[in-house]
Amino acid sequence: MDKNAFRQLSYGVYVVSTWDKGRATGCTANSAMQITSDPATVAVSINHDNYTNQCIRETGKFAVSVLGEHSDPGIIGTFGFRSGRDQNKFDGVEQVVKGYLPVVADACAYIVCEVIDRMETSSHTVFLGRVTDAGILKKDEPMTYAYYHNVIKGKSPKNAPTYIAEESAAAEGAAGSTAAASSGRYVCSVCGYVYEGDVPFEELPEDYRCPVCKQPKSAFVEG
Amino acid sequence: MDKNAFRQLSYGVYVVSTWDKGRATGCTANSAMQITSDPATVAVSINHDNYTNQCIRETGKFAVSVLGEHSDPGIIGTFGFRSGRDQNKFDGVEQVVKGYLPVVADACAYIVCEVIDRMETSSHTVFLGRVTDAGILKKDEPMTYAYYHNVIKGKSPKNAPTYIAEESAAAEGAAGSTAAASSGRYVCSVCGYVYEGDVPFEELPEDYRCPVCKQPKSAFVEG
Repeated sequence: MDKNAFRQLSYGVYVVSTWDKGRATGCTANSAMQITSDPATVAVSINHDNYTNQCIRETGKFAVSVLGEHSDPGIIGTFGFRSGRDQNKFDGVEQVVKGYLPVVADACAYIVCEVIDRMETSSHTVFLGRVTDAGILKKDEPMTYAYYHNVIKGKSPKNAPTYIAEESAAAEGAAGSTAAASSGRYVCSVCGYVYEGDVPFEELPEDYRCPVCKQPKSAFVEG
Repeated sequence: MDKNAFRQLSYGVYVVSTWDKGRATGCTANSAMQITSDPATVAVSINHDNYTNQCIRETGKFAVSVLGEHSDPGIIGTFGFRSGRDQNKFDGVEQVVKGYLPVVADACAYIVCEVIDRMETSSHTVFLGRVTDAGILKKDEPMTYAYYHNVIKGKSPKNAPTYIAEESAAAEGAAGSTAAASSGRYVCSVCGYVYEGDVPFEELPEDYRCPVCKQPKSAFVEG
């Protein structure tokens, strides 16, 4: 079985959000799809370990914020590589309330759902939601996972369905570029973002932070 | 509720196939996503009215063929706008058997699954499949639904979750181009493909067929 086939499925980049006892929380997700058109329903797949999963069970509601190519890529890391259990992910990310749920103001569209069914798997819950509100927030091209991967150079967090263990990724990297280890390339050890700016990495200011997950310069490793 | 928000979700273009008593059959689908990574599972959403739905229930197996930008766009219409109940959709479409299931040879990748769960909605079944085989068939960019919509100029068949009733589509078209009705533009009445070739539509040969759904020239209407 060649797991690279899984990378050929196309996805968007979303923040799935809900309330956590009056506080907004959420997580980055790729796996969202419309299931029926009338009445409109949407399914999302959320890892059991994501705090958002527990909060959706409690509220019975979730919102999907569709990130666009011009949305701040930092949102992906803010919602994707940290837990909402012990921090407020919306701290510093502008939110708007739509259909009684918090959505990311910098997204291009939102869909608000009420959970009507769910399917459990070994690691993820597929929540099926009946759409109660939806709208466009701004004109932008929806960000695809391919765009995130190829243009923003981001990776999947370990809880994502699309995560492929490091060995495979490393093998793929080795096949594509055998000179990687000696190229002076710097990679964020938290989210996998590859720095490819014109300024040499060593000369970046000390307060430089990963544009995807906001980790400090010290989180980058050469390789 | 602005249903245009649903169009901001990103999808690929797939053929979901299975056996129908020894004969290969399948249908075009957008709604496929990976749910878990280990063990790998994939969910697809198939309309109750699609013959493929019934056949997947009988075999307990399905394959996802991932169409690429260079796959013959005629495959989309062959599998998307006709029923496998009364015709052999694979007739004229080269198939290869992978993991004991028929897949489209002209696809860029395939994923073969064994059904382990399903979730019913009013019009669609979400089949959850454990991946038993997967592989790359050829190097190509996976076709996104946006590419199909914007470059190939195709539409959704009525059974698709992404289908939006004609009124909305017409309203959208009117907002974008008020001159459409008098522009001499020809549209396939079956799949919505818009002819935009350099040769005037009237001068196309009589054996011209819609490149998406293979309908004859007579199926085109001006407007």
